Amino acid sequence: MTGALTIVGLGPGDPRYLTPAASAVLASATDIVGYGPYVDRVPERPGVRRHASDNRVELDRARFALELAAKGARVAVVSGGDPGVFAMAAAVFEAVENGDPSWRGLDIRVEPGITAMLAAAARVGAPLGGDFCALSLSDNLKPWDVVASRLRAAVAADFVVALYNPISSARPWQLGAAFEIVAETRAPDTPIILARAVGRPDERIRIVPLAEVEAAMADMSTIVIIGASNTRLIERPEEGAPYVYTPRFYGARP
Amino acid sequence: MTGALTIVGLGPGDPRYLTPAASAVLASATDIVGYGPYVDRVPERPGVRRHASDNRVELDRARFALELAAKGARVAVVSGGDPGVFAMAAAVFEAVENGDPSWRGLDIRVEPGITAMLAAAARVGAPLGGDFCALSLSDNLKPWDVVASRLRAAVAADFVVALYNPISSARPWQLGAAFEIVAETRAPDTPIILARAVGRPDERIRIVPLAEVEAAMADMSTIVIIGASNTRLIERPEEGAPYVYTPRFYGARP
Repeated sequence: MTGALTIVGLGPGDPRYLTPAASAVLASATDIVGYGPYVDRVPERPGVRRHASDNRVELDRARFALELAAKGARVAVVSGGDPGVFAMAAAVFEAVENGDPSWRGLDIRVEPGITAMLAAAARVGAPLGGDFCALSLSDNLKPWDVVASRLRAAVAADFVVALYNPISSARPWQLGAAFEIVAETRAPDTPIILARAVGRPDERIRIVPLAEVEAAMADMSTIVIIGASNTRLIERPEEGAPYVYTPRFYGARP
Repeated sequence: MTGALTIVGLGPGDPRYLTPAASAVLASATDIVGYGPYVDRVPERPGVRRHASDNRVELDRARFALELAAKGARVAVVSGGDPGVFAMAAAVFEAVENGDPSWRGLDIRVEPGITAMLAAAARVGAPLGGDFCALSLSDNLKPWDVVASRLRAAVAADFVVALYNPISSARPWQLGAAFEIVAETRAPDTPIILARAVGRPDERIRIVPLAEVEAAMADMSTIVIIGASNTRLIERPEEGAPYVYTPRFYGARP
Protein backbone atom coordinates (compact mmCIF):
# COMPACT_ATOMS: atom_id res chain seq x y z
CA MET A 1 0.00 0.00 0.00
CA THR A 2 1.30 3.43 -0.93
CA GLY A 3 0.63 6.28 1.40
CA ALA A 4 -0.72 9.65 0.45
CA LEU A 5 -0.95 13.03 2.07
CA THR A 6 -3.44 15.77 1.23
CA ILE A 7 -3.42 19.16 2.86
CA VAL A 8 -7.10 20.02 3.07
CA GLY A 9 -8.66 23.47 3.30
CA LEU A 10 -11.67 23.45 5.63
CA GLY A 11 -12.65 27.00 4.74
CA PRO A 12 -14.04 29.38 7.36
CA GLY A 13 -15.78 27.88 10.38
CA ASP A 14 -19.10 27.06 8.75
CA PRO A 15 -19.22 23.51 7.27
CA ARG A 16 -21.34 24.87 4.41
CA TYR A 17 -18.09 26.30 3.03
CA LEU A 18 -16.36 22.89 2.92
CA THR A 19 -16.13 21.82 -0.73
CA PRO A 20 -17.30 18.35 -1.82
CA ALA A 21 -13.73 17.67 -2.99
CA ALA A 22 -12.40 18.38 0.50
CA SER A 23 -15.17 16.31 2.11
CA ALA A 24 -14.23 13.36 -0.10
CA VAL A 25 -10.61 13.51 1.06
CA LEU A 26 -11.69 13.59 4.70
CA ALA A 27 -14.04 10.65 4.09
CA SER A 28 -11.27 8.43 2.73
CA ALA A 29 -8.45 9.39 5.12
CA THR A 30 -7.06 6.97 7.67
CA ASP A 31 -5.42 9.74 9.71
CA ILE A 32 -6.42 13.34 10.39
CA VAL A 33 -3.56 15.62 11.47
CA GLY A 34 -3.85 19.26 12.49
CA TYR A 35 -4.27 21.99 15.03
CA GLY A 36 -6.85 20.87 17.59
CA PRO A 37 -9.76 23.15 16.65
CA TYR A 38 -9.44 22.17 12.99
CA VAL A 39 -9.32 18.46 13.76
CA ASP A 40 -12.46 18.98 15.87
CA ARG A 41 -14.28 20.23 12.76
CA VAL A 42 -13.80 16.90 10.95
CA PRO A 43 -16.75 14.53 11.46
CA GLU A 44 -15.90 11.46 13.57
CA ARG A 45 -15.65 8.19 11.65
CA PRO A 46 -14.90 4.70 13.05
CA GLY A 47 -11.30 3.61 12.61
CA VAL A 48 -9.94 7.04 11.77
CA ARG A 49 -6.99 8.14 13.86
CA ARG A 50 -7.09 11.78 14.93
CA HIS A 51 -3.85 13.59 15.78
CA ALA A 52 -4.51 17.03 17.24
CA SER A 53 -1.62 19.28 18.09
CA ASP A 54 -0.81 22.76 19.30
CA ASN A 55 -0.81 25.66 16.83
CA ARG A 56 2.87 26.54 17.23
CA VAL A 57 4.45 23.42 15.79
CA GLU A 58 3.61 23.48 12.08
CA LEU A 59 6.88 21.96 10.93
CA ASP A 60 6.84 19.14 13.50
CA ARG A 61 3.25 18.41 12.55
CA ALA A 62 4.17 18.35 8.87
CA ARG A 63 7.01 15.89 9.49
CA PHE A 64 4.77 13.68 11.60
CA ALA A 65 2.17 13.61 8.81
CA LEU A 66 4.81 12.77 6.20
CA GLU A 67 6.12 9.92 8.36
CA LEU A 68 2.61 8.51 8.63
CA ALA A 69 2.14 8.72 4.86
CA ALA A 70 5.54 7.10 4.29
CA LYS A 71 4.30 4.14 6.36
CA GLY A 72 1.29 3.75 4.08
CA ALA A 73 -1.37 5.90 5.76
CA ARG A 74 -3.81 8.09 3.84
CA VAL A 75 -3.26 11.31 5.74
CA ALA A 76 -5.37 14.46 5.67
CA VAL A 77 -3.58 17.47 7.15
CA VAL A 78 -6.38 19.88 7.95
CA SER A 79 -6.08 23.64 7.80
CA GLY A 80 -8.56 26.47 8.24
CA GLY A 81 -9.40 28.53 5.16
CA ASP A 82 -7.19 27.65 2.21
CA PRO A 83 -4.13 25.57 3.12
CA GLY A 84 -1.95 27.46 0.63
CA VAL A 85 -2.59 30.88 2.18
CA PHE A 86 -0.58 31.40 5.38
CA ALA A 87 -1.41 27.87 6.48
CA MET A 88 -0.14 24.29 6.46
CA ALA A 89 0.71 23.63 2.80
CA ALA A 90 3.95 25.62 2.76
CA ALA A 91 5.00 23.96 6.03
CA VAL A 92 4.52 20.51 4.50
CA PHE A 93 6.61 21.41 1.44
CA GLU A 94 9.32 22.92 3.66
CA ALA A 95 9.42 19.59 5.50
CA VAL A 96 9.56 17.68 2.21
CA GLU A 97 12.40 19.82 0.86
CA ASN A 98 14.51 19.42 3.97
CA GLY A 99 13.45 15.94 5.04
CA ASP A 100 13.80 12.28 4.09
CA PRO A 101 14.44 12.11 0.31
CA SER A 102 11.88 9.32 -0.02
CA TRP A 103 9.13 11.81 0.90
CA ARG A 104 9.52 13.35 -2.56
CA GLY A 105 8.05 10.18 -4.01
CA LEU A 106 4.86 10.41 -1.94
CA ASP A 107 1.56 11.44 -3.47
CA ILE A 108 1.17 14.89 -1.89
CA ARG A 109 -1.79 17.03 -2.86
CA VAL A 110 -3.44 20.25 -1.79
CA GLU A 111 -7.22 20.63 -1.65
CA PRO A 112 -8.14 24.33 -1.83
CA GLY A 113 -10.60 26.07 0.46
CA ILE A 114 -12.30 29.42 0.92
CA THR A 115 -9.63 31.60 2.50
CA ALA A 116 -10.58 34.15 5.16
CA MET A 117 -10.28 37.26 3.01
CA LEU A 118 -12.76 35.90 0.47
CA ALA A 119 -15.31 34.98 3.13
CA ALA A 120 -14.87 38.32 4.90
CA ALA A 121 -15.13 40.27 1.67
CA ALA A 122 -18.31 38.43 0.70
CA ARG A 123 -19.96 39.38 3.99
CA VAL A 124 -19.68 43.11 3.35
CA GLY A 125 -19.89 43.43 -0.44
CA ALA A 126 -16.94 43.36 -2.82
CA PRO A 127 -13.99 45.17 -1.22
CA LEU A 128 -11.54 42.97 -3.18
CA GLY A 129 -13.15 44.01 -6.47
CA GLY A 130 -9.95 45.74 -7.62
CA ASP A 131 -6.33 44.62 -7.37
CA PHE A 132 -5.35 43.42 -3.92
CA CYS A 133 -2.54 41.99 -1.80
CA ALA A 134 -2.55 39.46 1.03
CA LEU A 135 0.09 40.09 3.67
CA SER A 136 0.79 38.24 6.90
CA LEU A 137 1.55 40.71 9.65
CA SER A 138 3.40 38.11 11.66
CA ASP A 139 7.10 38.79 12.15
CA ASN A 140 7.75 35.36 13.60
CA LEU A 141 9.02 34.07 10.26
CA LYS A 142 10.16 37.23 8.49
CA PRO A 143 11.70 40.47 9.76
CA TRP A 144 9.34 43.33 10.56
CA ASP A 145 11.26 45.48 8.06
CA VAL A 146 10.06 43.17 5.27
CA VAL A 147 6.47 43.32 6.52
CA ALA A 148 6.58 47.11 6.75
CA SER A 149 8.20 47.64 3.36
CA ARG A 150 5.71 45.32 1.65
CA LEU A 151 2.79 47.09 3.29
CA ARG A 152 4.21 50.48 2.31
CA ALA A 153 4.65 49.34 -1.30
CA ALA A 154 1.15 47.87 -1.51
CA VAL A 155 -0.46 51.00 -0.10
CA ALA A 156 1.60 53.31 -2.32
CA ALA A 157 0.54 51.33 -5.41
CA ASP A 158 -3.09 51.61 -4.23
CA PHE A 159 -3.81 47.92 -3.78
CA VAL A 160 -6.53 46.83 -1.38
CA VAL A 161 -4.64 44.98 1.38
CA ALA A 162 -5.82 41.99 3.40
CA LEU A 163 -3.85 41.53 6.62
CA TYR A 164 -3.64 37.99 7.93
CA ASN A 165 -2.39 37.23 11.47
CA PRO A 166 -2.87 40.88 12.47
CA ILE A 167 -2.30 40.57 16.20
CA SER A 168 -1.68 38.14 19.04
CA SER A 169 -0.61 38.36 22.67
CA ALA A 170 2.99 37.78 21.56
CA ARG A 171 2.71 40.41 18.77
CA PRO A 172 0.74 43.26 20.33
CA TRP A 173 2.13 46.35 18.53
CA GLN A 174 2.45 45.36 14.87
CA LEU A 175 -1.13 46.09 13.84
CA GLY A 176 -1.01 49.61 15.28
CA ALA A 177 2.26 50.20 13.42
CA ALA A 178 0.61 48.91 10.25
CA PHE A 179 -2.31 51.34 10.58
CA GLU A 180 0.23 54.17 11.01
CA ILE A 181 1.96 53.15 7.78
CA VAL A 182 -1.39 53.08 5.97
CA ALA A 183 -2.31 56.51 7.34
CA GLU A 184 0.84 58.00 5.80
CA THR A 185 -0.82 57.61 2.41
CA ARG A 186 -4.51 56.72 2.63
CA ALA A 187 -7.28 59.16 3.46
CA PRO A 188 -8.81 59.19 6.98
CA ASP A 189 -12.14 57.94 5.64
CA THR A 190 -10.63 54.85 3.97
CA PRO A 191 -12.87 51.91 4.93
CA ILE A 192 -11.22 49.30 7.14
CA ILE A 193 -13.03 45.98 7.54
CA LEU A 194 -12.38 43.94 10.66
CA ALA A 195 -13.93 40.51 10.25
CA ARG A 196 -13.69 38.15 13.18
CA ALA A 197 -14.53 34.43 13.14
CA VAL A 198 -16.37 34.56 9.81
CA GLY A 199 -18.84 31.71 9.52
CA ARG A 200 -18.75 30.89 13.21
CA PRO A 201 -21.44 31.62 15.78
CA ASP A 202 -19.29 34.36 17.31
CA GLU A 203 -18.74 36.12 13.98
CA ARG A 204 -18.38 39.87 14.28
CA ILE A 205 -17.78 42.27 11.43
CA ARG A 206 -17.05 45.98 11.73
CA ILE A 207 -16.47 48.63 9.09
CA VAL A 208 -14.49 51.55 10.51
CA PRO A 209 -12.86 54.57 8.87
CA LEU A 210 -9.07 54.55 9.03
CA ALA A 211 -9.10 57.63 11.30
CA GLU A 212 -11.03 55.69 13.95
CA VAL A 213 -9.57 52.20 13.69
CA GLU A 214 -7.65 50.77 16.65
CA ALA A 215 -5.56 47.66 16.95
CA ALA A 216 -7.69 46.60 19.92
CA MET A 217 -10.62 46.07 17.52
CA ALA A 218 -8.84 42.94 16.21
CA ASP A 219 -7.73 39.68 17.76
CA MET A 220 -5.98 36.60 16.41
CA SER A 221 -9.21 35.37 14.77
CA THR A 222 -9.65 38.60 12.82
CA ILE A 223 -8.82 39.38 9.23
CA VAL A 224 -8.34 43.05 8.41
CA ILE A 225 -9.08 44.44 4.94
CA ILE A 226 -7.78 47.92 4.13
CA GLY A 227 -9.58 49.70 1.32
CA ALA A 228 -7.83 51.31 -1.66
CA SER A 229 -8.33 54.99 -2.49
CA ASN A 230 -11.44 54.13 -4.53
CA THR A 231 -13.00 51.63 -2.11
CA ARG A 232 -16.34 53.07 -1.10
CA LEU A 233 -19.45 52.57 1.00
CA ILE A 234 -23.00 52.34 -0.29
CA GLU A 235 -25.28 53.53 2.48
CA ARG A 236 -28.49 51.60 2.92
CA PRO A 237 -31.92 52.51 4.23
CA GLU A 238 -32.92 51.93 7.83
CA GLU A 239 -30.59 49.85 9.97
CA GLY A 240 -28.89 47.97 7.11
CA ALA A 241 -25.09 47.92 7.28
CA PRO A 242 -23.50 49.67 4.30
CA TYR A 243 -22.10 47.67 1.43
CA VAL A 244 -18.37 48.13 0.83
CA TYR A 245 -16.92 47.65 -2.62
CA THR A 246 -13.98 48.51 -4.82
CA PRO A 247 -14.99 49.31 -8.39
CA ARG A 248 -13.45 47.31 -11.21
CA PHE A 249 -12.53 50.51 -13.03
CA TYR A 250 -9.84 52.90 -11.85
CA GLY A 251 -9.40 56.57 -12.62
CA ALA A 252 -11.72 58.08 -15.16
CA ARG A 253 -14.73 55.87 -15.76
CA PRO A 254 -14.53 54.29 -19.22
CA MET B 1 -42.84 38.88 -1.68
CA THR B 2 -39.46 40.55 -1.29
CA GLY B 3 -36.84 39.82 -3.87
CA ALA B 4 -33.26 38.88 -3.20
CA LEU B 5 -30.08 38.75 -5.20
CA THR B 6 -27.04 36.63 -4.42
CA ILE B 7 -23.86 36.72 -6.45
CA VAL B 8 -22.67 33.13 -6.34
CA GLY B 9 -19.14 31.84 -6.82
CA LEU B 10 -19.13 28.59 -8.78
CA GLY B 11 -15.41 28.03 -8.23
CA PRO B 12 -13.24 26.53 -10.97
CA GLY B 13 -14.88 24.30 -13.55
CA ASP B 14 -15.16 21.15 -11.46
CA PRO B 15 -18.49 20.92 -9.56
CA ARG B 16 -16.62 19.29 -6.68
CA TYR B 17 -15.39 22.80 -5.84
CA LEU B 18 -18.89 24.24 -5.51
CA THR B 19 -19.57 24.83 -1.80
CA PRO B 20 -22.75 23.52 -0.17
CA ALA B 21 -23.64 27.12 0.67
CA ALA B 22 -23.48 28.07 -3.02
CA SER B 23 -25.43 24.96 -4.02
CA ALA B 24 -28.18 25.91 -1.59
CA VAL B 25 -28.53 29.36 -3.15
CA LEU B 26 -28.77 27.85 -6.64
CA ALA B 27 -31.36 25.36 -5.41
CA SER B 28 -33.66 28.08 -4.10
CA ALA B 29 -33.28 30.64 -6.89
CA THR B 30 -36.11 31.49 -9.25
CA ASP B 31 -33.76 33.08 -11.80
CA ILE B 32 -30.18 32.33 -12.82
CA VAL B 33 -28.33 35.21 -14.48
CA GLY B 34 -24.82 35.10 -15.90
CA TYR B 35 -22.37 34.61 -18.71
CA GLY B 36 -23.53 31.64 -20.79
CA PRO B 37 -20.86 29.07 -19.83
CA TYR B 38 -21.45 29.75 -16.13
CA VAL B 39 -25.22 29.47 -16.44
CA ASP B 40 -24.63 26.15 -18.22
CA ARG B 41 -22.86 24.86 -15.11
CA VAL B 42 -25.99 25.26 -12.96
CA PRO B 43 -28.10 22.08 -12.83
CA GLU B 44 -31.45 22.40 -14.63
CA ARG B 45 -34.47 22.61 -12.37
CA PRO B 46 -38.15 22.88 -13.38
CA GLY B 47 -39.56 26.38 -13.21
CA VAL B 48 -36.21 28.13 -12.98
CA ARG B 49 -35.64 30.88 -15.51
CA ARG B 50 -32.16 30.97 -17.02
CA HIS B 51 -30.80 34.21 -18.45
CA ALA B 52 -27.51 33.66 -20.24
CA SER B 53 -25.66 36.61 -21.70
CA ASP B 54 -22.44 37.56 -23.40
CA ASN B 55 -19.29 38.12 -21.32
CA ARG B 56 -18.86 41.77 -22.25
CA VAL B 57 -21.90 43.26 -20.62
CA GLU B 58 -21.33 42.89 -16.88
CA LEU B 59 -23.03 46.14 -15.93
CA ASP B 60 -26.11 45.54 -18.11
CA ARG B 61 -26.38 42.04 -16.67
CA ALA B 62 -26.10 43.42 -13.14
CA ARG B 63 -28.88 45.94 -13.77
CA PHE B 64 -31.08 43.26 -15.31
CA ALA B 65 -30.57 41.04 -12.26
CA LEU B 66 -31.37 43.91 -9.89
CA GLU B 67 -34.57 44.69 -11.81
CA LEU B 68 -35.64 41.06 -11.49
CA ALA B 69 -34.95 41.10 -7.76
CA ALA B 70 -36.83 44.38 -7.38
CA LYS B 71 -39.87 42.65 -8.90
CA GLY B 72 -39.70 39.91 -6.26
CA ALA B 73 -37.52 37.26 -7.88
CA ARG B 74 -34.88 35.30 -6.00
CA VAL B 75 -31.97 35.87 -8.33
CA ALA B 76 -28.63 34.04 -8.42
CA VAL B 77 -26.01 35.89 -10.44
CA VAL B 78 -23.44 33.22 -11.22
CA SER B 79 -19.73 33.87 -11.56
CA GLY B 80 -16.73 31.59 -12.07
CA GLY B 81 -14.27 31.33 -9.20
CA ASP B 82 -15.02 33.80 -6.44
CA PRO B 83 -17.48 36.54 -7.41
CA GLY B 84 -15.56 39.16 -5.46
CA VAL B 85 -12.27 38.63 -7.33
CA PHE B 86 -12.33 40.25 -10.80
CA ALA B 87 -15.87 38.99 -11.33
CA MET B 88 -19.52 39.95 -11.01
CA ALA B 89 -19.84 41.19 -7.41
CA ALA B 90 -18.19 44.57 -8.00
CA ALA B 91 -20.31 45.06 -11.13
CA VAL B 92 -23.50 44.49 -9.13
CA PHE B 93 -22.47 47.01 -6.48
CA GLU B 94 -21.50 49.53 -9.15
CA ALA B 95 -25.00 49.12 -10.55
CA VAL B 96 -26.54 49.53 -7.10
CA GLU B 97 -24.54 52.67 -6.35
CA ASN B 98 -25.51 54.33 -9.62
CA GLY B 99 -28.97 52.86 -10.10
CA ASP B 100 -32.51 53.01 -8.75
CA PRO B 101 -32.31 54.11 -5.08
CA SER B 102 -34.79 51.37 -4.12
CA TRP B 103 -32.16 48.76 -5.03
CA ARG B 104 -30.28 49.71 -1.86
CA GLY B 105 -33.09 48.17 0.13
CA LEU B 106 -32.79 44.78 -1.58
CA ASP B 107 -31.28 41.78 0.19
CA ILE B 108 -28.00 41.50 -1.75
CA ARG B 109 -25.49 38.87 -0.73
CA VAL B 110 -22.25 37.39 -2.00
CA GLU B 111 -21.53 33.65 -1.76
CA PRO B 112 -17.76 33.09 -1.94
CA GLY B 113 -16.05 30.51 -4.12
CA ILE B 114 -12.62 29.05 -4.81
CA THR B 115 -10.91 31.67 -6.93
CA ALA B 116 -8.60 30.62 -9.78
CA MET B 117 -5.30 31.46 -8.07
CA LEU B 118 -6.13 29.20 -5.11
CA ALA B 119 -7.08 26.28 -7.35
CA ALA B 120 -4.03 26.77 -9.56
CA ALA B 121 -1.70 27.08 -6.58
CA ALA B 122 -3.11 23.91 -5.02
CA ARG B 123 -2.37 21.94 -8.20
CA VAL B 124 1.37 22.63 -8.06
CA GLY B 125 2.15 22.91 -4.35
CA ALA B 126 2.04 26.11 -2.33
CA PRO B 127 3.36 28.99 -4.48
CA LEU B 128 1.16 31.46 -2.54
CA GLY B 129 2.74 30.36 0.75
CA GLY B 130 4.25 33.83 1.32
CA ASP B 131 2.77 37.28 0.80
CA PHE B 132 1.08 37.72 -2.58
CA CYS B 133 -0.86 40.11 -4.79
CA ALA B 134 -3.68 39.53 -7.28
CA LEU B 135 -3.62 41.86 -10.25
CA SER B 136 -5.88 42.00 -13.28
CA LEU B 137 -3.82 42.61 -16.39
CA SER B 138 -6.81 43.98 -18.26
CA ASP B 139 -6.54 47.62 -19.24
CA ASN B 140 -10.17 47.79 -20.32
CA LEU B 141 -11.19 49.37 -17.01
CA LYS B 142 -7.99 50.99 -15.79
CA PRO B 143 -5.07 52.61 -17.62
CA TRP B 144 -2.10 50.42 -18.50
CA ASP B 145 0.11 52.80 -16.51
CA VAL B 146 -1.74 51.78 -13.35
CA VAL B 147 -1.38 48.09 -14.18
CA ALA B 148 2.33 48.48 -14.90
CA SER B 149 3.07 50.55 -11.81
CA ARG B 150 1.24 48.11 -9.55
CA LEU B 151 3.08 45.16 -11.05
CA ARG B 152 6.41 46.97 -10.67
CA ALA B 153 5.63 47.77 -7.02
CA ALA B 154 4.55 44.21 -6.23
CA VAL B 155 7.65 42.71 -7.83
CA ALA B 156 9.98 45.21 -6.17
CA ALA B 157 8.50 44.39 -2.76
CA ASP B 158 8.99 40.68 -3.55
CA PHE B 159 5.38 39.60 -3.44
CA VAL B 160 4.27 36.52 -5.36
CA VAL B 161 1.94 37.90 -8.06
CA ALA B 162 -1.13 36.21 -9.54
CA LEU B 163 -2.13 37.72 -12.88
CA TYR B 164 -5.81 37.48 -13.77
CA ASN B 165 -7.08 38.20 -17.30
CA PRO B 166 -3.55 37.90 -18.68
CA ILE B 167 -4.33 37.98 -22.38
CA SER B 168 -7.11 38.03 -24.96
CA SER B 169 -7.40 38.65 -28.67
CA ALA B 170 -8.22 42.30 -27.92
CA ARG B 171 -5.29 42.59 -25.47
CA PRO B 172 -2.43 40.70 -27.12
CA TRP B 173 0.69 42.55 -25.91
CA GLN B 174 0.08 43.25 -22.23
CA LEU B 175 1.28 39.89 -20.88
CA GLY B 176 4.58 40.13 -22.74
CA ALA B 177 5.04 43.64 -21.37
CA ALA B 178 4.30 42.30 -17.89
CA PHE B 179 6.95 39.58 -18.19
CA GLU B 180 9.44 42.26 -19.25
CA ILE B 181 8.64 44.30 -16.15
CA VAL B 182 9.10 41.22 -13.97
CA ALA B 183 12.44 40.42 -15.64
CA GLU B 184 13.78 43.86 -14.68
CA THR B 185 13.93 42.61 -11.09
CA ARG B 186 13.38 38.87 -10.78
CA ALA B 187 16.00 36.23 -11.57
CA PRO B 188 15.78 34.27 -14.87
CA ASP B 189 15.03 31.02 -13.00
CA THR B 190 12.01 32.47 -11.17
CA PRO B 191 9.21 29.89 -11.49
CA ILE B 192 6.22 31.02 -13.53
CA ILE B 193 3.06 28.92 -13.30
CA LEU B 194 0.61 29.00 -16.20
CA ALA B 195 -2.57 27.22 -15.19
CA ARG B 196 -5.25 26.89 -17.81
CA ALA B 197 -8.84 25.75 -17.23
CA VAL B 198 -8.15 24.36 -13.75
CA GLY B 199 -10.70 21.71 -12.81
CA ARG B 200 -11.94 21.28 -16.37
CA PRO B 201 -11.22 18.35 -18.70
CA ASP B 202 -8.91 20.52 -20.79
CA GLU B 203 -6.85 21.61 -17.78
CA ARG B 204 -3.21 22.27 -18.59
CA ILE B 205 -0.57 23.42 -16.14
CA ARG B 206 2.98 24.41 -16.97
CA ILE B 207 5.85 25.54 -14.78
CA VAL B 208 8.37 27.56 -16.77
CA PRO B 209 11.39 29.64 -15.71
CA LEU B 210 11.00 33.35 -16.29
CA ALA B 211 13.77 33.31 -18.91
CA GLU B 212 11.75 30.90 -21.06
CA VAL B 213 8.19 32.08 -20.54
CA GLU B 214 6.25 33.50 -23.49
CA ALA B 215 2.92 35.25 -23.63
CA ALA B 216 1.75 32.69 -26.21
CA MET B 217 1.78 30.06 -23.44
CA ALA B 218 -1.33 31.72 -21.95
CA ASP B 219 -4.83 32.34 -23.20
CA MET B 220 -7.89 33.97 -21.69
CA SER B 221 -8.61 30.89 -19.55
CA THR B 222 -5.16 30.97 -17.97
CA ILE B 223 -4.07 32.31 -14.64
CA VAL B 224 -0.39 33.19 -14.32
CA ILE B 225 1.45 33.01 -11.00
CA ILE B 226 4.85 34.69 -10.78
CA GLY B 227 7.11 33.40 -8.02
CA ALA B 228 8.86 35.64 -5.50
CA SER B 229 12.65 35.56 -5.08
CA ASN B 230 12.34 32.69 -2.61
CA THR B 231 9.74 30.62 -4.51
CA ARG B 232 11.39 27.31 -5.30
CA LEU B 233 10.96 23.94 -6.95
CA ILE B 234 11.23 20.58 -5.24
CA GLU B 235 12.32 18.07 -7.85
CA ARG B 236 10.69 14.67 -7.70
CA PRO B 237 11.77 11.20 -8.70
CA GLU B 238 10.87 9.72 -12.07
CA GLU B 239 8.35 11.57 -14.18
CA GLY B 240 6.67 13.45 -11.31
CA ALA B 241 6.21 17.17 -11.92
CA PRO B 242 8.12 19.27 -9.39
CA TYR B 243 6.34 20.85 -6.47
CA VAL B 244 6.48 24.65 -6.35
CA TYR B 245 6.26 26.47 -3.06
CA THR B 246 7.06 29.73 -1.34
CA PRO B 247 8.36 29.25 2.20
CA ARG B 248 6.56 30.94 5.06
CA PHE B 249 9.84 32.34 6.33
CA TYR B 250 11.79 35.06 4.57
CA GLY B 251 15.46 35.92 4.83
CA ALA B 252 17.49 34.06 7.41
CA ARG B 253 15.66 30.99 8.61
CA PRO B 254 14.49 31.51 12.19
